[in-house]
Amino acid sequence: MKLAIIDIGSNSIRMILVRMVDGCYKIYNDLKESARLGEGLETTGQLGEEHMDRALSTLKMFKRLIDAVGCDTIIAVATEAVRKASNKEIFLEAVRKKVGIDVRVLSGEEEAFFDFLAVKNSLPVSDALIMDIGGSSTELVYMQDKKMVEKVSLPLGSINLAERFDLSTELKPEQETALKHFLFHQFSKINWLATCTAPVLVGIGGTIRSLGKIDRARKNYPLDITHYYQMDPHDVQEIYQTVKRQSLVKRQKIKGLSKSRADLFLGPVAALSVITELCGIEEIVISGSGLREGLIFDHLARQEKIIRDPLDYSIRNIAGNHNLNEKHGQRVYHLFRSLFDQLKPLHHLGPEYGNILKTAALLHDCGININYYGHPLHSFYMILHSGIQGLTHRELLISAYIAGSHRKDECKVDLSRYQQLLSSQDALIIRTLGVLLSMAESLDRNMSSTVQDVSCRMEDHTVTIKTMATETPYLEINDAMQFKNIFAKVFGRDLRII
Amino acid sequence: MKLAIIDIGSNSIRMILVRMVDGCYKIYNDLKESARLGEGLETTGQLGEEHMDRALSTLKMFKRLIDAVGCDTIIAVATEAVRKASNKEIFLEAVRKKVGIDVRVLSGEEEAFFDFLAVKNSLPVSDALIMDIGGSSTELVYMQDKKMVEKVSLPLGSINLAERFDLSTELKPEQETALKHFLFHQFSKINWLATCTAPVLVGIGGTIRSLGKIDRARKNYPLDITHYYQMDPHDVQEIYQTVKRQSLVKRQKIKGLSKSRADLFLGPVAALSVITELCGIEEIVISGSGLREGLIFDHLARQEKIIRDPLDYSIRNIAGNHNLNEKHGQRVYHLFRSLFDQLKPLHHLGPEYGNILKTAALLHDCGININYYGHPLHSFYMILHSGIQGLTHRELLISAYIAGSHRKDECKVDLSRYQQLLSSQDALIIRTLGVLLSMAESLDRNMSSTVQDVSCRMEDHTVTIKTMATETPYLEINDAMQFKNIFAKVFGRDLRII
Repeated sequence: MKLAIIDIGSNSIRMILVRMVDGCYKIYNDLKESARLGEGLETTGQLGEEHMDRALSTLKMFKRLIDAVGCDTIIAVATEAVRKASNKEIFLEAVRKKVGIDVRVLSGEEEAFFDFLAVKNSLPVSDALIMDIGGSSTELVYMQDKKMVEKVSLPLGSINLAERFDLSTELKPEQETALKHFLFHQFSKINWLATCTAPVLVGIGGTIRSLGKIDRARKNYPLDITHYYQMDPHDVQEIYQTVKRQSLVKRQKIKGLSKSRADLFLGPVAALSVITELCGIEEIVISGSGLREGLIFDHLARQEKIIRDPLDYSIRNIAGNHNLNEKHGQRVYHLFRSLFDQLKPLHHLGPEYGNILKTAALLHDCGININYYGHPLHSFYMILHSGIQGLTHRELLISAYIAGSHRKDECKVDLSRYQQLLSSQDALIIRTLGVLLSMAESLDRNMSSTVQDVSCRMEDHTVTIKTMATETPYLEINDAMQFKNIFAKVFGRDLRII
Repeated sequence: MKLAIIDIGSNSIRMILVRMVDGCYKIYNDLKESARLGEGLETTGQLGEEHMDRALSTLKMFKRLIDAVGCDTIIAVATEAVRKASNKEIFLEAVRKKVGIDVRVLSGEEEAFFDFLAVKNSLPVSDALIMDIGGSSTELVYMQDKKMVEKVSLPLGSINLAERFDLSTELKPEQETALKHFLFHQFSKINWLATCTAPVLVGIGGTIRSLGKIDRARKNYPLDITHYYQMDPHDVQEIYQTVKRQSLVKRQKIKGLSKSRADLFLGPVAALSVITELCGIEEIVISGSGLREGLIFDHLARQEKIIRDPLDYSIRNIAGNHNLNEKHGQRVYHLFRSLFDQLKPLHHLGPEYGNILKTAALLHDCGININYYGHPLHSFYMILHSGIQGLTHRELLISAYIAGSHRKDECKVDLSRYQQLLSSQDALIIRTLGVLLSMAESLDRNMSSTVQDVSCRMEDHTVTIKTMATETPYLEINDAMQFKNIFAKVFGRDLRII
């Protein structure tokens, strides 16, 4: 099944194309046109002729693409700009007639709800203040224990803030005072914000994604991954303080910020910094998922595809998209866990490695999709870049390294590239878990679950692993024994498998 | 359809599992056990009991895997060791009864034929001497104009050479003389070798693959790709001269050589060096495809899936395996070629870039399979690692870079990593072709072939590209114009698209 999701925002019009099979989804196209429908709206209360024309051209192009790839379902929504324009009916009618698409105008509360769905289903965060800063509106959701307890939509966004306070170039002190005053005033009207005790703010929207990108660029952060990038409120402050003194020309050269967004950047950052201060936020988490992903999750929920855990869903999604042998993955995961749990007295690692074990075991073979030959290394690459949701970047990286070292002594990718994310202890952790995964994989080398489980006995100089199998697994044991040397290095004991 | 191919050799028993759809194939598992069936055969003329038992255990494990993944077809073949053993019927019967697999014993000529099929269909080489050095036999094929004109199978291989001349440790001068004398004698009996004028030797088999790996390791070659690795005969000589003076323990530490092969390594290298000298070979090309791939191609041919060109077939294979939008790929390829051909007076690149253009254009989107976000970079990775056949490593790398820079100004992967393969001019070539591919992709952004072709007019300061389209492609032109700056840098002219 193919789904097209169109989001007619105040700043840009975007479309993603999504393929859905068995409750799994894969985004396979993403288009964006900067139509700026919200421009001038603050003054005239209307969508401008020219802006509407540009939007129509964009939507026509999108529609041709939809027809070319053959989508079954189109979900088109419009947000604040269309919502508040007095001439919205003219625009909607034109889209209906000239493009052949019915656009649903979302209320601010609906928008907030889809943001909440996106965060709930894609981040391993239970309590957070969610903030989506768009071109003309900002949605705030208070999520507690994965439930939406409060929500609000405010008519302030990057475009109207920039227009109202003339933010596209160096800020004068009086401008800044007016802006901050306005923002404090707006946010302080929301009573429930005072009760919000979540230490985490999850940020959604293009500006916030840019903010993360800028921060990664200035820190030479080793991964180019937006989703679940974690920032300190100080970082936001620093970037804000720098940018506010810059001219538009200078802003256009900031690494990580797109030129077309440079004039609109400051308002949202100010808003974020005000709310961070107001609510005592300790950590900012960037979400790569937003309104459009919320609409996907909503669509899935309507088909009764309920997502219980972002990580599990993500893994299932990737395994499904890449035809992985599920039975083998599950068996390897089971054996890996069993070895991990029983050898705990030797490695001392705790349950906080659960997500890493799961990811590395269930996806260890995904690289076969690229090429069987060298597949552990391809698994490393794919785990790192597949957009897995529900892991911190450190967890993601360790999972990738472990999968990348299965069937080998070590993953060949140089650890020093990622030293910002990994400690010196992590190298040992990766080796430890890597050898256990390799052994687990060897023990299910015939993919037929001959070895059902293992039982480990630890002695002073030896670890004896007894296989519980349906028939004697000579070759599997033989295969696992090739890791004897690295096992001895990591655990300081001789390996015996019987 | 799932196919299992089992190859019972003198040194190892291997199995690959292959998925076939619409004439495309994908190897998704490869198992190897070093059973050394050929050991002792030289002296006793028989397969040893213990060796047969080990082989049976291995085949049973393979069979369990076959059953677990559900293969439709099993093609099991045996080569020289079984072929010449006086007790082969006992072994074959045991395999039939205890494992349930019928093994076909190939004649030396049949083996040579499958080697030929493998090379013909996977390398862009028309004339070559093909040499497959196995554990107990060596096949030689003279291929002219992609046709097999001569073939022979000789009963000499890594195991029997090592046994007969005691090659597993430092070689004494008298041993070396005896070995070389024997090899010259064997090869000089083949009359047609004297008529062989092919400058290229294509090498097949584990030892030859190891030789390539050793060469890559000692040269810090930047790609870990076996197939179509090109070597100078001097390299073979150098490695031979070094290894012959080394003890077994030292050989086991050679980077690139597997421990289990160290004692058998020298004989095949000597054979290769003798034949290289005898036939005046100027270049050695390593083939990653051999007997098993030959059997796949034979299987395809029986279903009337004829492979006309290794590269075309490879691209179709990858595009098929990754669900690429073929129409979009073809349109982008067409527009890319059209821009390339018409702008030749500016870039001066010739038809030798044809394969690169084709690969980069048809596979530019393959990275979407990993993640839409960042997909040009994933395309870079996938093109480099998917085992594309029919391109030199330099062509492969340039294709990957071009695909990796589509939709961007530049591919982010540092060129200096690959300086052994790329010249300083190649950086400019990559930029030139990268901007043309980006423009071509933009012009089919709606994937519906609105822009059918382009016509370019070059003036002193401007290049004007006129689109021939079914309707005015405003957005496509707009999208392509984002490459105006890099176009100006590369071509020294202003870009106009109308």
